[in-house]
Amino acid sequence: MKLIKTPVKGMNDVLPREERLRGKALAAIRETYAAFGFDEVETPAVEHIENLTGKEGGENEKLIFRVMKRGAELQRAIEKGDELADSGLRYDLTLPLARLYAANKDSLPAPFKALQMGPVWRADRPQKGRFRQFTQCDIDILGDASCLAEIELISATSLMLTKLFAGTEAEKFTVHVNDRRILRAMALYAGFPEERLDLVFILLDKLDKVGKEGVKEEMVREGFDGAAADKYLALFDRERSGSVADFCAFLSESGLDGAIPETLDTILACVKAAAPATATFVFDPTLVRGMGYYTGPIFEVTLDAYSFSIAGGGRYDKMIGRFAGQDTPACGFSIGFERIITILGDMAQKQAATPGDGVALLVEAGADGALMRKVFADAAALRAQGKRVTVLPLKKNAKFQIDVLMEEGYGDVRRIYKD
Amino acid sequence: MKLIKTPVKGMNDVLPREERLRGKALAAIRETYAAFGFDEVETPAVEHIENLTGKEGGENEKLIFRVMKRGAELQRAIEKGDELADSGLRYDLTLPLARLYAANKDSLPAPFKALQMGPVWRADRPQKGRFRQFTQCDIDILGDASCLAEIELISATSLMLTKLFAGTEAEKFTVHVNDRRILRAMALYAGFPEERLDLVFILLDKLDKVGKEGVKEEMVREGFDGAAADKYLALFDRERSGSVADFCAFLSESGLDGAIPETLDTILACVKAAAPATATFVFDPTLVRGMGYYTGPIFEVTLDAYSFSIAGGGRYDKMIGRFAGQDTPACGFSIGFERIITILGDMAQKQAATPGDGVALLVEAGADGALMRKVFADAAALRAQGKRVTVLPLKKNAKFQIDVLMEEGYGDVRRIYKD
Repeated sequence: MKLIKTPVKGMNDVLPREERLRGKALAAIRETYAAFGFDEVETPAVEHIENLTGKEGGENEKLIFRVMKRGAELQRAIEKGDELADSGLRYDLTLPLARLYAANKDSLPAPFKALQMGPVWRADRPQKGRFRQFTQCDIDILGDASCLAEIELISATSLMLTKLFAGTEAEKFTVHVNDRRILRAMALYAGFPEERLDLVFILLDKLDKVGKEGVKEEMVREGFDGAAADKYLALFDRERSGSVADFCAFLSESGLDGAIPETLDTILACVKAAAPATATFVFDPTLVRGMGYYTGPIFEVTLDAYSFSIAGGGRYDKMIGRFAGQDTPACGFSIGFERIITILGDMAQKQAATPGDGVALLVEAGADGALMRKVFADAAALRAQGKRVTVLPLKKNAKFQIDVLMEEGYGDVRRIYKD
Repeated sequence: MKLIKTPVKGMNDVLPREERLRGKALAAIRETYAAFGFDEVETPAVEHIENLTGKEGGENEKLIFRVMKRGAELQRAIEKGDELADSGLRYDLTLPLARLYAANKDSLPAPFKALQMGPVWRADRPQKGRFRQFTQCDIDILGDASCLAEIELISATSLMLTKLFAGTEAEKFTVHVNDRRILRAMALYAGFPEERLDLVFILLDKLDKVGKEGVKEEMVREGFDGAAADKYLALFDRERSGSVADFCAFLSESGLDGAIPETLDTILACVKAAAPATATFVFDPTLVRGMGYYTGPIFEVTLDAYSFSIAGGGRYDKMIGRFAGQDTPACGFSIGFERIITILGDMAQKQAATPGDGVALLVEAGADGALMRKVFADAAALRAQGKRVTVLPLKKNAKFQIDVLMEEGYGDVRRIYKD
């Protein structure tokens, strides 16, 4: 029988060229976070269907790849008209981490600095650069309520980006920092009703795209008071070159705890003290970060040469506890791994090809035992010197074979003819 | 809502201690095969259900985790009583490789030296040390009909094992080499009927466990001629310290092509020429390798200190072609990755704990901005020297905290008190 050759819809095979970039990125990420004391963990691809569908996030539920029950259990479910799936493919790494942490809290370091890298699956409509299986890379610190967690996360991520992109046009980046509570206080100060703040932030999040006028228009269209919108948007013109505490002084009348901007100042000062020269850190009161589950500082990294963010995260002190059944402060970063690969791929294409340092030994068919032994002893000696060496049959069209091998990074091609 | 804390049945979370071993093994495997010119590739976890179930292997079909259709398609399938799954989790890496090769042949190196490492899923009855999600590690050379492929595969695998186990009690290993055609010729010479050879080999494969007497008993019980069994089992007493060609001389009357044992001699001589001192290579005419799809040389690696094989493979010139619709010689090795992890874990437990070289900076709550900046500048400087450094809040029970950190490899713990 012949196979269906294409991968299933929306998923893709990774060929050698891309796999090398992925391997390079994974290694740089592993190495960096390990230097900050993060421990890597892995969870199974398959999760209990109850865990996947019990979350409030109804949107995600539609995207789950469900895995069917098997054997007698499937039969029973069909007869009874029950749920046919007992599990599903994980659609993020946060839920499995919460489960792993709940089950193993006592044997894990406290605080637990976790690195996770692995595929997740979402039955999204496939589109360019968006796949139904893609790699997520999450870094989380569970059990640390102090801002040491934020500083470690931002510092490590800055160093990781520097390792990946130093010396390229993607090397400069900006880390935007804000706090959900400052975001709230500013909106309340402007006069928006507390119960509609989520929508205010959704509209504010479009500032980059539609500008102030556009945001105001949409706010009015949604029924918000135009004067509140004006007052709100004008706040973002306030001088912010000083400390966050200075910027936020006016918010004390809205009940903002002065320790909150002070903590952001500490975070900014500490990450600057440890930062590479290519990094900029700014307080950005317009930063929203979509997720409603954030409870404190939030941050987002943009590459200066690109228009999109490459990583983002924040503090989410309520979520892990709700899943795990015990209060757990938590702070995390999600790295846009697939975007990193896209950028590395673009840069690799622009780079001039340099002759590879691999050695290819091409052996003519019919070489006798003694000659073969010599070839493999030579190959072993070269490998012991750290060389990449491949031993292949010499083809009839040797010139074409050699050209192709040169392209594959074998700058030193040797032909070995039988005597 | 609270989560179900345990992983789904038969799958497991990988905690930091094991993950470090897995990372170490993956890196050693990657590095070794890259030095031999192997290219890593990845395929999606999810495969077309037609590809998974179309293979002759009916046994595997029961073990597939089926992934349900979604939305309108699922609705239609339920109404019509059609197959509810459109895909399933891959249960090995061979089929996806065949698919990837068929789809991308023209853009891949020829021959294509492929390394694959990744999870596969089988709904087996869970048992000790056997999981429903486990990592497979396959190395294959597609498109090379010469024995250079066998030599490269065995040499690389020998070096990989040496890298993983050198200096430990697991370091010595033996590579057993045979050829399916020699296996066949010996059985035909003894007088077994050609159409029942598969069963003969299944019984011979029990030789290690039940001995010659046991094998003969089972052969007779299965209706084979006792005289054939005696003649057959006596063949394995023949002197085999000389060349394979010498051993096989008597088989020329059974039609064995003399080039076949000569090739085994060449393979053995060449892998010895490139081998580490801890490796032994032997011609083993009792080696069967269960799979019927092998067509030529077969090999298996056993660690001398353990009773099980750690890797095995052989030439399978027909299979890829059948899937891909075009003849493709192929030779491959499958590494028992989970067994390697078990062994590394056993060894790690036996090793005396050595003080780790990590540095932990424990910061008292309430430290001011200036002190914090200094802590993180110090941490950055230590990391720049290659140290693993973690910055954590100092706990009230500092002594206990420090003891735990020492166990986690932080041999240098510094307490930073606020002024």
